[in-house]
Amino acid sequence: MFRIVDGGITSPKGFMAAGCHAGLKKKKNDMALIYSEADCISAATYTTNVVKAAPVLYDMSIAASVKRGFVVNSGNANACTGEQGKSDAKTMARLCEESLGAPSGSFFVASTGVIGQTLPMEKIEGGIKTLVSGLKKGREADDEASSSILTTDTFKKEVAVETVIGGKSVVIGAIAKGSGMIHPNMATMLCFVTTDANIEKETLQRLLGSSVEDSFNMISVDGDTSTNDSCIILANALAGNPLITKESEGYDDFKEALAYVLGYLAKQITKDGEGAGRFIEVKVKGAATRSDARLMARSVVSSNLVKAAFFGSDANWGRILCAMGYSGAKFDPECVRLTFSSAKGEILVLDGSPVAFSEEKAKEILLEKTVNVDIVLGDGEGEATAWGCDLTYDYVKINGDYRS
Amino acid sequence: MFRIVDGGITSPKGFMAAGCHAGLKKKKNDMALIYSEADCISAATYTTNVVKAAPVLYDMSIAASVKRGFVVNSGNANACTGEQGKSDAKTMARLCEESLGAPSGSFFVASTGVIGQTLPMEKIEGGIKTLVSGLKKGREADDEASSSILTTDTFKKEVAVETVIGGKSVVIGAIAKGSGMIHPNMATMLCFVTTDANIEKETLQRLLGSSVEDSFNMISVDGDTSTNDSCIILANALAGNPLITKESEGYDDFKEALAYVLGYLAKQITKDGEGAGRFIEVKVKGAATRSDARLMARSVVSSNLVKAAFFGSDANWGRILCAMGYSGAKFDPECVRLTFSSAKGEILVLDGSPVAFSEEKAKEILLEKTVNVDIVLGDGEGEATAWGCDLTYDYVKINGDYRS
Repeated sequence: MFRIVDGGITSPKGFMAAGCHAGLKKKKNDMALIYSEADCISAATYTTNVVKAAPVLYDMSIAASVKRGFVVNSGNANACTGEQGKSDAKTMARLCEESLGAPSGSFFVASTGVIGQTLPMEKIEGGIKTLVSGLKKGREADDEASSSILTTDTFKKEVAVETVIGGKSVVIGAIAKGSGMIHPNMATMLCFVTTDANIEKETLQRLLGSSVEDSFNMISVDGDTSTNDSCIILANALAGNPLITKESEGYDDFKEALAYVLGYLAKQITKDGEGAGRFIEVKVKGAATRSDARLMARSVVSSNLVKAAFFGSDANWGRILCAMGYSGAKFDPECVRLTFSSAKGEILVLDGSPVAFSEEKAKEILLEKTVNVDIVLGDGEGEATAWGCDLTYDYVKINGDYRS
Repeated sequence: MFRIVDGGITSPKGFMAAGCHAGLKKKKNDMALIYSEADCISAATYTTNVVKAAPVLYDMSIAASVKRGFVVNSGNANACTGEQGKSDAKTMARLCEESLGAPSGSFFVASTGVIGQTLPMEKIEGGIKTLVSGLKKGREADDEASSSILTTDTFKKEVAVETVIGGKSVVIGAIAKGSGMIHPNMATMLCFVTTDANIEKETLQRLLGSSVEDSFNMISVDGDTSTNDSCIILANALAGNPLITKESEGYDDFKEALAYVLGYLAKQITKDGEGAGRFIEVKVKGAATRSDARLMARSVVSSNLVKAAFFGSDANWGRILCAMGYSGAKFDPECVRLTFSSAKGEILVLDGSPVAFSEEKAKEILLEKTVNVDIVLGDGEGEATAWGCDLTYDYVKINGDYRS
């Protein structure tokens, strides 16, 4: 059990944040710092791309040490930047550590933006000074941090929830950025999570991994898995709750709260997919295994032909069946039940064989901003849900001249 | 050694063809018949999609029997049509066999078009009558057949080549249709090949398989693998050449000629990709294995972000490296050499680390209709080439209202 609270990344006890314009972008804020006054344990999942950006490689190298915060820049991904890039990522962390009197290896570094250009380190250094002196708690801090990490995103993504464990209030706050390169397999975005929970490191890593599986790894904007993407959580134990372990009281509550936080942000990222006009939720039930259900749900939300059909509000179930067919999952194509629904109602279009339906009614349903696709198979108990968006003229436009 | 000849599907000895408007489409021709006056052996590769259309399932069931031809309709894919669809595919074949006095199981059936609607069998029956009475040889027959199998294609795809084996002229003719749903893994399109070669069935199947690997399985228009796609070859032995086997004289010539035919059609299909404005050839050399090279080349031509960058004539090598990174292939990202080239020249953009280059010159090169991407790695001897096209507004437009 948990409740959503009005807040963000600084809602958990002991966390502060700041954002600023360091000059990597022309006008918008482009650096953020998130800081914990107490030592934290951490857990993280990173992009599966063979080409990992310098900050990702740096963060992976400092996994074990005690943590105090995140430093993030947008406007430049520090990816494909060779030895210089690696050294720059390390310098970003060191500058924060020195300014805040924190131990070596205590700051995670993240970068997002254009690939293949080295960081303008003078601007970064100036930015870090501004950030350190601007650290604060509350609405303004949350806003600065959540807005400074964006690239082509059109809105901020943040959330905070509270649960009670052993009589103590435990809070989780989080921010994320997404927009382009959003695709299954943890890749795709940046997400920073803070919590004041007192939790075992091993348990935190397991819970983060399983929550990412069902949230960020089930969304697709364009099928591209980026070089930088990371989801990292810091826990500083200031809530004072009894330690959360796999067997302890509060494990289920914390798990549920964290899953909500990541699921919420994953959906927000999909809704803000580059050029997206429509949000699509695809639920598969009755698959032979959970893995088959995942393959099919992700294949459907990733298909360009399906996405273009949603852009045209076309009840083209043939393309959905086709995308299930090449997903790699095994299923009986003659036992598929497929329903489209939205705020305007629902319509069954396939029930083993095609069902006659009103194209007019289907159009009305599919013209809504949020559309659900429910697929029921007769092969077993496997279930999964994936989220995606339509393919629009704007996607092509945004990505046809992103660099310029 | 072989030469290209001015001809098409009826160029090999003993083959005739016809096309007609049976009424499945509003105005354009929608049925084709290709017929051999002598018995043929055959070989085929089919879609890997779990959802296979009725004609594909029918064709797979009659693989062993002696063949006399193909009957094809466009405008309706006869896919996801249940028992009725299977019975209709069989009826199409039977009507041809009866009209032409051919044995049972001697006609391959292929359909392409909308999924999920049963065939209008009265129209099909009328069409077959027209086709049988219209069978002929030569330019007009070639034209009718190649144009009647198209869907959203904007031009016909046909080719004929001649080679000499044991002093005898051996001819291969072929037609194809593509446009949407073009993606690696034999799926993607229809291709019909005729030859008068005298060739062992096992050898024919092996050669077709390897040629498809390097042609149709290396192209991508949109990442969707269709339910109907088939590449089928008939060989009637009328050339009178000594039997081609793996060890025989002429094996290499026939292999080379067939590879050219399928490679040519694969590239034509890519050039005519739905909404495509630009043709992209991606060559990978120096990969650890051939399989790694294939994975990387296909991943690059399939990436929406790469395709959108080509639409914008943007030398965005970061997206190319990124697509190589999530391809599943292993490589050293710090030893990549990447060159863009076209009729306007060439430009090196990455050589281990980023190379400073003139954006103006790059733009000039990338504005051409055909663009080459050469990727050289330092991991081994693996090589592969893949073909693709850019992602355009027109792709979204065409697929946003294909059914309507």
